[in-house]
Amino acid sequence: MRTHYCGHLNKSLAGQTVDLCGWVNRRRDLGGLIFIDMRDREGVVQVVIDPDMTEIFTLANQLRNEFCIRLTGEVRERPESQCNKDMATGEVEIYATGLEIINRSEALPLDFNQKNSEEQRLKYRYLDLRRPEMSDRIKLRAKASSFVRRFLDDNAFLDIETPVLTKATPEGARDYLVPSRVHKGKFYALPQSPQLFKQLLMMSGFDRYYQIVKCFRDEDLRADRQPEFTQIDIETSFMSADQVRATTEKMITEMWKELLNVDLGAFPVMSFEEAARRFGSDKPDLRNPLELVDVADILKDVEFQVFSAPANDPKGRVAVIRVPGGASLSRKQIDEYTKFVGIYGAKGLAWMKVNDRAAGFDGVQSPVAKFLNEEVVENLLERTQAESGDIILFGADSKRVVTEAMGALRLKLGEDLALTDKSAWKPLWVVDFPMFEENEDGSLSAMHHPFTSPLNLTPEELAANPADALSNAYDMVINGYEVGGGSVRIHNSAMQSTVFDILGISTEEQRLKFGFLLDALQFGTPPHAGLAFGLDRLVMLLCGTDNIRDVIAFPKTTAAACLLTDAPSLANPASLEELSIAVNIAKKKEQDQE
Amino acid sequence: MRTHYCGHLNKSLAGQTVDLCGWVNRRRDLGGLIFIDMRDREGVVQVVIDPDMTEIFTLANQLRNEFCIRLTGEVRERPESQCNKDMATGEVEIYATGLEIINRSEALPLDFNQKNSEEQRLKYRYLDLRRPEMSDRIKLRAKASSFVRRFLDDNAFLDIETPVLTKATPEGARDYLVPSRVHKGKFYALPQSPQLFKQLLMMSGFDRYYQIVKCFRDEDLRADRQPEFTQIDIETSFMSADQVRATTEKMITEMWKELLNVDLGAFPVMSFEEAARRFGSDKPDLRNPLELVDVADILKDVEFQVFSAPANDPKGRVAVIRVPGGASLSRKQIDEYTKFVGIYGAKGLAWMKVNDRAAGFDGVQSPVAKFLNEEVVENLLERTQAESGDIILFGADSKRVVTEAMGALRLKLGEDLALTDKSAWKPLWVVDFPMFEENEDGSLSAMHHPFTSPLNLTPEELAANPADALSNAYDMVINGYEVGGGSVRIHNSAMQSTVFDILGISTEEQRLKFGFLLDALQFGTPPHAGLAFGLDRLVMLLCGTDNIRDVIAFPKTTAAACLLTDAPSLANPASLEELSIAVNIAKKKEQDQE
Repeated sequence: MRTHYCGHLNKSLAGQTVDLCGWVNRRRDLGGLIFIDMRDREGVVQVVIDPDMTEIFTLANQLRNEFCIRLTGEVRERPESQCNKDMATGEVEIYATGLEIINRSEALPLDFNQKNSEEQRLKYRYLDLRRPEMSDRIKLRAKASSFVRRFLDDNAFLDIETPVLTKATPEGARDYLVPSRVHKGKFYALPQSPQLFKQLLMMSGFDRYYQIVKCFRDEDLRADRQPEFTQIDIETSFMSADQVRATTEKMITEMWKELLNVDLGAFPVMSFEEAARRFGSDKPDLRNPLELVDVADILKDVEFQVFSAPANDPKGRVAVIRVPGGASLSRKQIDEYTKFVGIYGAKGLAWMKVNDRAAGFDGVQSPVAKFLNEEVVENLLERTQAESGDIILFGADSKRVVTEAMGALRLKLGEDLALTDKSAWKPLWVVDFPMFEENEDGSLSAMHHPFTSPLNLTPEELAANPADALSNAYDMVINGYEVGGGSVRIHNSAMQSTVFDILGISTEEQRLKFGFLLDALQFGTPPHAGLAFGLDRLVMLLCGTDNIRDVIAFPKTTAAACLLTDAPSLANPASLEELSIAVNIAKKKEQDQE
Repeated sequence: MRTHYCGHLNKSLAGQTVDLCGWVNRRRDLGGLIFIDMRDREGVVQVVIDPDMTEIFTLANQLRNEFCIRLTGEVRERPESQCNKDMATGEVEIYATGLEIINRSEALPLDFNQKNSEEQRLKYRYLDLRRPEMSDRIKLRAKASSFVRRFLDDNAFLDIETPVLTKATPEGARDYLVPSRVHKGKFYALPQSPQLFKQLLMMSGFDRYYQIVKCFRDEDLRADRQPEFTQIDIETSFMSADQVRATTEKMITEMWKELLNVDLGAFPVMSFEEAARRFGSDKPDLRNPLELVDVADILKDVEFQVFSAPANDPKGRVAVIRVPGGASLSRKQIDEYTKFVGIYGAKGLAWMKVNDRAAGFDGVQSPVAKFLNEEVVENLLERTQAESGDIILFGADSKRVVTEAMGALRLKLGEDLALTDKSAWKPLWVVDFPMFEENEDGSLSAMHHPFTSPLNLTPEELAANPADALSNAYDMVINGYEVGGGSVRIHNSAMQSTVFDILGISTEEQRLKFGFLLDALQFGTPPHAGLAFGLDRLVMLLCGTDNIRDVIAFPKTTAAACLLTDAPSLANPASLEELSIAVNIAKKKEQDQE
């Protein structure tokens, strides 16, 4: 029905007759003429309707915003003075010679000229997606997927589908369950990732696998989480961690180049330990120049217990952040930051303003200065390379609290004081993660997942000292977002059993949950390693938004509901009967009444 | 770890040293040497291990089938006499200079040299997928998906993801339900297709959408069905049915050309009515030369009620199949066919052998000949163009029974008598389907789905005579398989309401289930049309298998179970508690005991 997209029209087509299909973006009546901004997925073009075209003009008089129309017209070059530089098609206009109203539109429940509530936008998602800002994001997402597929196809990766109706996976988050009708009382689980299937594919010999695949986590949601999310899932055999990183780094680098014309450069590789030490995070945002500086050695002998106790505790940490120009922070602002670090368990936020660096001890202003002597202060100023006008903020507590609180404070200061360079791209790899995290009860959990290989350890060495073991895992971080993570996997059944043992999974449970994996490891399993990217997050970064719902066509709310279709909803009682399940909310109420 | 794939080695590399990674496919000890057929995903190559290489030879002595190894060696051209023409790499062998055993293997539970039970194959799927026959299918599937994506990307289609956790869809099959933890007592449904979402995307203006997407139906399974299956889902705006068919036909034609080097030619277009009349099917296998021939007019005046009653009934049908050479069928064989048509409700299978065509009435042999006169028999012979040695088989019953029974019989005869040309490719389009099917209680169901547009009817005309309305729907059929189907959709709310009314969906139910669609139709909906292909079926055809499980990496059994991971399985009681649901099998038993 069309010869061109509205958004593709330009001077080179002047004189040609074109057929267009699209929507009335805006109508203006001016000087006896009707002007229509006509929109389709590729853009907007201005149409002029001349009163001399009597029939068309009469019809055009009925046009309202969002009417769906078909239009025939001649492309005309605009005189220089009437060109619209803000519009891609601003050098031409279309002189209408034919018009058909395909479908009328009621007045929209959304106003495209102002900000609408997210609730309204989600309820009328199909209308919100008409906004070029939104449709551009969905188009960029399509381009991103397409780029990834071409890259991986060209690099001999095979796109292989894995099941959605499957068995509970051990990633740790809550599974979505699906009751089986055939096997009464049993349930499928929706996958949190195709982890075990992709490992099995390596055992089958496929060598290089990928899939862009939906994964599911029934977790309480945050702004950058959705109950269903999309993963670029990758697994390889016979490749080292370095090779996997090199291949996937190339993919991301070429993607940024092609889609944004941005050169990301080579990604630095940083150990987990360094990331925690310098940035208080396992996903440091390197656009932010602030760093945590350890000062326990300087403070371990001061009389001020708040500093000296953690400085002398092997599980403690004392670290400061020097904020350039921060001496101008008001008392109120400092109080707010104190409250902020409290969220992470910090009991206070000591500070020291550097009013005159040259004056040393006499040039600083700080409620804690009285506990410190000249030498300590001078050492602090030197260690942090402080200058006049800076502030130094102190964190002193357990390692965990200081790292988390100061890491979060670093990010907040970067935002608040506009220190973070929003125009920059700062990717990096974080490597050498601990194998295990200690739970409150002293037991260990896998930091990645229980199939991650330790770094250079035999099963015996690992069992002897699991708490200190590092894993051969790696995360890709861009601008403070973990966009991908992966590891070398265990390909040896003795090692796999050792890890399960350390995690406190009984032999019986190992057989029940992972018997097929332990079996599979008996039959010539190749060494394998992989990685998964969060496509939603990558596209968020590409689009420059921090709301994951902006890059998903039909997202759910943070309460995991779809406001458009009203899902989830009540089920037909007959269906539940067939599935042999019952909802037991009402029943509980009845019991309460009894 | 490798420089080449085993399967890629050839004469041009002679003299080069290569590194290979893979599996021991077979080991033979011959004339003091050890020969290893080494396998990776691209194929097999022969490796020779010379006893002079003492260390390697000792290690090689430990090798058993399916050990995972790394091998370094020199590519050597084989003397002409020792070339293996059956092997892609048969002109070379690798002279081993380095060997590493990466991982040992127990004896496999599958024997690759003989046929294993499907149960064993599914339980050890990761091993079964090592067989080149299986891995080739999975690789062809990856190529097929990749081809489709490139074709659609190049034709300006946008890959847009739609939700998996969504609302019950109206396709008619049973939905898989997913209990919500946040919204107690409510359920998501897994989509039977993204039908409504893709229509909404057209309303958003995306214009050309596609997705290769998992869909779900909780139905009793057949050989070519799976609970989760993959759809190539397509939707377009501003395109007619002809244009959608032309675009998708081009995609399939180019796919066959690229993947099989087969030219499918232009697809004939056949009406549903003609397909049912001539082939007794809405998905005729045109490789089979047999046709149904209507003979009610010839038989309407015979005294034999079995023929004349349906011949005179407007809802009846009398049709025959002439089987060339079928006069040689034995009485026993005919009895079996009689039993076979009984499955479809036919009460018998009258037959007439043509022993001597020239002798007319006297040349035929038939238990029903005595009820027919010379003229009738001559007319039958002429209408069917029977020749000596043929058999004519009769179906006389309701239209439905005759069409289904004779359609099925046609297929069975084609197979049994090797009349169906298995080497041929016979695609076609079936169009002009009825809008509605009549249920036993006289009510109407949508033949496609309730969003399908009728063919050239106003809402008023449709409401006046729904039973006779045709829809603007189309199916693509290849070799008797419906590989894709679609339609022009309703883009007008009056028409949509009319269809819902005809289907007996109350206004209240319309609002509850499809309120968002009816709302959306108010806001300038473009005309739109689409189609969905079953990827699994397409790949089945491409691979030349008729078992859908052969083209799915991790399929489920016909009882919807995964024998590999043992899904579905019992759920953790705490999880069910959190979801506020209970399994009520045990409860029922208890009640029975009370």
